[in-house]
Amino acid sequence: MNIIITAGGTTEQIDQVRKIANAASGRLASCVAREFVRQGGTKIEKIYYVCERGAIVPELDCLELVTTRGAESVGAALQSILAREKIDAVVHSMAVSDYTVESMTTAEDLADGIARRIWARSEDFSDEAALADFVTDCILQNDRVIDRSYKVSSNLAHPLLALRQTPKLIRIVKDLQPETILVGFKLLDGVPREELLDTAHALLRKNACDFVLANDLTEISGERHTGYLLAPDRRYERCETKQEIAETIVKNVLGLYGKRNKK
Amino acid sequence: MNIIITAGGTTEQIDQVRKIANAASGRLASCVAREFVRQGGTKIEKIYYVCERGAIVPELDCLELVTTRGAESVGAALQSILAREKIDAVVHSMAVSDYTVESMTTAEDLADGIARRIWARSEDFSDEAALADFVTDCILQNDRVIDRSYKVSSNLAHPLLALRQTPKLIRIVKDLQPETILVGFKLLDGVPREELLDTAHALLRKNACDFVLANDLTEISGERHTGYLLAPDRRYERCETKQEIAETIVKNVLGLYGKRNKK
Repeated sequence: MNIIITAGGTTEQIDQVRKIANAASGRLASCVAREFVRQGGTKIEKIYYVCERGAIVPELDCLELVTTRGAESVGAALQSILAREKIDAVVHSMAVSDYTVESMTTAEDLADGIARRIWARSEDFSDEAALADFVTDCILQNDRVIDRSYKVSSNLAHPLLALRQTPKLIRIVKDLQPETILVGFKLLDGVPREELLDTAHALLRKNACDFVLANDLTEISGERHTGYLLAPDRRYERCETKQEIAETIVKNVLGLYGKRNKK
Repeated sequence: MNIIITAGGTTEQIDQVRKIANAASGRLASCVAREFVRQGGTKIEKIYYVCERGAIVPELDCLELVTTRGAESVGAALQSILAREKIDAVVHSMAVSDYTVESMTTAEDLADGIARRIWARSEDFSDEAALADFVTDCILQNDRVIDRSYKVSSNLAHPLLALRQTPKLIRIVKDLQPETILVGFKLLDGVPREELLDTAHALLRKNACDFVLANDLTEISGERHTGYLLAPDRRYERCETKQEIAETIVKNVLGLYGKRNKK
């Protein structure tokens, strides 16, 4: 079996020295990798372990480390592996930054741009909502931006960072290899369990996942890490530690792989 | 001698899982700590090593680790140590984030707030500049902000982060202990050497530093780390690696300490 595990958090550059980062260590992913070797034995030929520098990397002979930086490079790495080689399972546990930096400006420069465009307009606004739409456009099209290819000055009075969503990388997997077994992850914060499971199940259906690990920040602290491994039929197994989550994921992936290859 | 070394980068929380971080490993600071022990021997009683989790920490018997999170907690740690104990030298090499997150909003919500306030105004604006000032106030006083005490939704179309400057922590040092030997750091990016030295010297005077290590990102890569250790009389020593920088800082700090204690 060839497996891809994505691990840890990703970072998005603000400028040459500053970045937006996710608080994810790669500990759970490293448990998953070790568990594949423990349960799968010699059946496991290769584990591609995709992570950024600083993530926890387990020492395993079959592990091939793929170092990325930022969501875009994770997408490129997945695409490259999935395009050239048959992959039997993908465990996408990486906490990919949902947002990257679109641009950086200051409150003063943004206001100048908005005022200039409002002032230059010949006709009146029909109502407040029309003015709000116009101002939204001004904000989104703001071109008075700071050059982020250098270290940005440390003396700006009121900096503003405009963010945009990164592409959902999980979609790449089944697009390129519909037959691979895909495990997605959904992390929410302080929601009722039903809502957590519903959201996780929506993610599962949208991305054709075979399993989704649903977890909630309020149930993660110290050694405790509650997770619900959800199947397409909405059945789930509840786990209480990272190690238990890893064991349950691997058991289910290997089980499904065995069932399919018997046919 | 009792010494404080601040090391690595700092992080500022955006929400429960996201943060702004600086790309600093603590490698230089760990060289400085080891060099103090090598050159100072038993004269070095204690090194307070102030850093965030993840920074490189050298293994030294005299080292007392002080773990911080965010610029504010670094300030609190420095204040606490300097208030209770005589400190002979402070090497402030930590890359403290210049900015923290003031608030998070979306382009649409910010625009709504601006439009509402413009629409509600009874009098006309005298000119474009007056309108720009008004819009700046709207941006700075925006109260349609996202609750960041949870994990913020990953589905916002156009998030905006408003940043504000963190306090300059280096000022705390001589305010509390004017007699301590203080080494500051100045990192710029792609400026002529004269400008780098001028800026570093301005920092030195402003904060009553005894030395400032001036360096430029364009002269840091791989093993190479060019640094200029600048004294109040503008003389400087040039170094080419982190180890050389550490040796030069420690040599000069111990030299100044010896000279003062002979009197």
